[in-house]
Amino acid sequence: MITYEAKRELLDIVGPEYYSDKLEDLVLYASDATNQNQYRPDAVIRPATTEEVARAVLTARRHKVPFIPRGSGSGLSGGALPVDGGIVCVMTRFNRVLEIDEENLLAVVEPGVVTARFQAEVEQLGLFYPPDPASRDFSSLGGNVAENAGGTRAVKYGVTRDYVLGLEFVVGTGEIIQTGVRTVKGVVGYDLTRLIVGSEGTLGVITKLILRLVPKPQSRETVVAYYADMEDAARTVSALTAARVVPATLEFMDRASINCAEDYLRQGLDRTAGAMLLIETDGPEAQARAEAEVAVEVCRRSGAGKVHRAHSREEAEAMWKARRCMSPAMFRVASGKFNEDIVVPRTRIPEMLKRMEQISARHGLTIINFGHAGDGNIHVNVMFDKADPVQAERSHEAVREIMAATLELGGTMSGEHGIGTSKRDFLDMEIRPEAMNLMKRIKTAFDPDGIMNPKKVFPLHP
Amino acid sequence: MITYEAKRELLDIVGPEYYSDKLEDLVLYASDATNQNQYRPDAVIRPATTEEVARAVLTARRHKVPFIPRGSGSGLSGGALPVDGGIVCVMTRFNRVLEIDEENLLAVVEPGVVTARFQAEVEQLGLFYPPDPASRDFSSLGGNVAENAGGTRAVKYGVTRDYVLGLEFVVGTGEIIQTGVRTVKGVVGYDLTRLIVGSEGTLGVITKLILRLVPKPQSRETVVAYYADMEDAARTVSALTAARVVPATLEFMDRASINCAEDYLRQGLDRTAGAMLLIETDGPEAQARAEAEVAVEVCRRSGAGKVHRAHSREEAEAMWKARRCMSPAMFRVASGKFNEDIVVPRTRIPEMLKRMEQISARHGLTIINFGHAGDGNIHVNVMFDKADPVQAERSHEAVREIMAATLELGGTMSGEHGIGTSKRDFLDMEIRPEAMNLMKRIKTAFDPDGIMNPKKVFPLHP
Repeated sequence: MITYEAKRELLDIVGPEYYSDKLEDLVLYASDATNQNQYRPDAVIRPATTEEVARAVLTARRHKVPFIPRGSGSGLSGGALPVDGGIVCVMTRFNRVLEIDEENLLAVVEPGVVTARFQAEVEQLGLFYPPDPASRDFSSLGGNVAENAGGTRAVKYGVTRDYVLGLEFVVGTGEIIQTGVRTVKGVVGYDLTRLIVGSEGTLGVITKLILRLVPKPQSRETVVAYYADMEDAARTVSALTAARVVPATLEFMDRASINCAEDYLRQGLDRTAGAMLLIETDGPEAQARAEAEVAVEVCRRSGAGKVHRAHSREEAEAMWKARRCMSPAMFRVASGKFNEDIVVPRTRIPEMLKRMEQISARHGLTIINFGHAGDGNIHVNVMFDKADPVQAERSHEAVREIMAATLELGGTMSGEHGIGTSKRDFLDMEIRPEAMNLMKRIKTAFDPDGIMNPKKVFPLHP
Repeated sequence: MITYEAKRELLDIVGPEYYSDKLEDLVLYASDATNQNQYRPDAVIRPATTEEVARAVLTARRHKVPFIPRGSGSGLSGGALPVDGGIVCVMTRFNRVLEIDEENLLAVVEPGVVTARFQAEVEQLGLFYPPDPASRDFSSLGGNVAENAGGTRAVKYGVTRDYVLGLEFVVGTGEIIQTGVRTVKGVVGYDLTRLIVGSEGTLGVITKLILRLVPKPQSRETVVAYYADMEDAARTVSALTAARVVPATLEFMDRASINCAEDYLRQGLDRTAGAMLLIETDGPEAQARAEAEVAVEVCRRSGAGKVHRAHSREEAEAMWKARRCMSPAMFRVASGKFNEDIVVPRTRIPEMLKRMEQISARHGLTIINFGHAGDGNIHVNVMFDKADPVQAERSHEAVREIMAATLELGGTMSGEHGIGTSKRDFLDMEIRPEAMNLMKRIKTAFDPDGIMNPKKVFPLHP
């Protein structure tokens, strides 16, 4: 419950139009794309300026109320959920692209700008913002930075972190912090910019971003290859590296994914295949073409059955359809799923998939795997019947075993979704107590009263 | 002075061979490449394992003695100077390349490995570690990470930060922290890895590094262009961006630099030129060549007088000679210099150079400028006669004015050298009090007793 005084302050800060504690609004902001638990906030505000955010944080601090920053709510680890109630701060009104500096290859934007809109805007100028989370049509840039979003192009272009030059944010003390630079180089003071990247709203609320841009690749080529099993597909990945080709994207789908997509699309995917690779090369036209030719050759040599190179952008888009339909397609397989995004060194992908087959068999659960073979990031979907408590319990145990196997193979439990609420119980499997304590001390440095997005990232048990 | 107990503990930890408090050793480690002030440590240790480092930090903590990590001492901002005495911890025995994983494009190395040696080792395998500080023949990788070293290739490849995947380090509490991953993606917990990058030894001692590698570019092309003035050279930089060409390096020298190099080399550089650009393109052979052709064309169109493209690697090396000789060449100009490394958005370089001409005239001091036009990083050398206290005083004032102009043009006061002792008095011109206080709280989270490399980064006045 929010007190009368706190409510009056918030109303004064954002105005009655942008404050709500009506039931329908509280229900609306009780969930996010994780689609698991619901937690109702006590109030929702939609500020429009950094000063409003700072004043609202001061109110939250004074009244010891949780303060939960929220972009589009498209996160997949529960980062925007008001687990302890409090004030949800919706950043959608921060929706301006303030500046695109074509000569210095950077943009200054507000956090509520939708990723795809920003990408389209810079591409019209012949520039390129590479991070492309699957949610890009609705996720916002502030959320992308808070979660350090990845996507399909990380193998060549890196992740969101690699494109953040500077930030403005409000920390838990209510102070406004400016950090970073408008240049690629800059080593003045501690790197607060990258500390905020991936901090999941637990250190502060991002209110402005300076993003790095690159020239738009002139040309793109797409190749699809089907394999009898994942080992051959993995051999292709290694052989591409050995041939010193870095594709722009290098996606894979396992047998279960291919069948799931075909059930949904009915477009004639090869159901007998054990794995599929989707490879894109880009750059100057001659280079993209030459690398695509090498890729076709490498696929064949590594044992691919069917290898096909797209002859037009339309054909390429058709090839992408199977990979892109996975999210809706999986809803038909079971009512519940745990959606993980583990990463292993890319040479360990076949071993990891083998481990998952064993875990799947042991618990009698369908596990669907697809993702980014180029950077070792696997989207693991443990499917279960929500109505069956035994299956739900087993799924949780299966996820724990998957995490353990990931770490054993030199990997990490999240590549691009973050920890949020959904992985915090596993965190101490990866982060040792000394590092965890250090992170807690950093949290305190930013947010002495613990009001910023509580019960996220860190495990609940001490 | 180090107490008898502390000395006994250190002797016990590293053994008598690797402990010294002999005068000749203390004098040796009293200075670094800044070549300004001397500060004698009380003791020097050369540990060989992380455990030895951790135990030595505990000793320093127990006895409240400063602990100063030191790589090769090639830093240019005084980061390795024992300003308050204490224990200098020399990391040169950490000199092993532990692993090069060709398939996953990464290496695990110890911090004392010399940068150029590591680069040669990976290049033999067809791989590439792009950061190339001018000191690479003697600087070590741990020092490069501690200072976030840059170099000539940042315009295309980024800086050291972009190649650090994970670290092991010992913080001021004596705890050993493992952070980061062996993969490009990874968003588990706060990004301690990048917080250590550029922290100048004030948060901890780096004991192990996981570095990202990329395929070695197949081919390289070199172009040199001379201009009547810097405006035309700057126009070339903008025109290259507009042509969507990202050169691997894009170096410039101003009139004073060209003359300084010619005085030193006598190889027939064009003394009448107001500016010189040195452009390299790289990548697959066809691409490097095509981009070099565009570069030649763009130079001519932008008003270059002489434009020359190297026909062999030897010829290219000869072209680099002028740029590379600057450090020794400047010693002949004056006995003292303040060597700054400001950065401005690259389109502001001509304006910045104009400001420096005014500052030079106002104080009657020679200022020599050269550096990285592609990323806006200018090496500003304010020359003065060490024997003349009035000149030394004026130089300091000139540097302050240069910093102010840099910030006014949207830049930052250090691109790759760091703050250390040499720029800490200017820090509050760039970092606002709220951010500075936050950094101090972070410092305390890592180093509650303030023993790690004291009197660096932060201004001395409160």
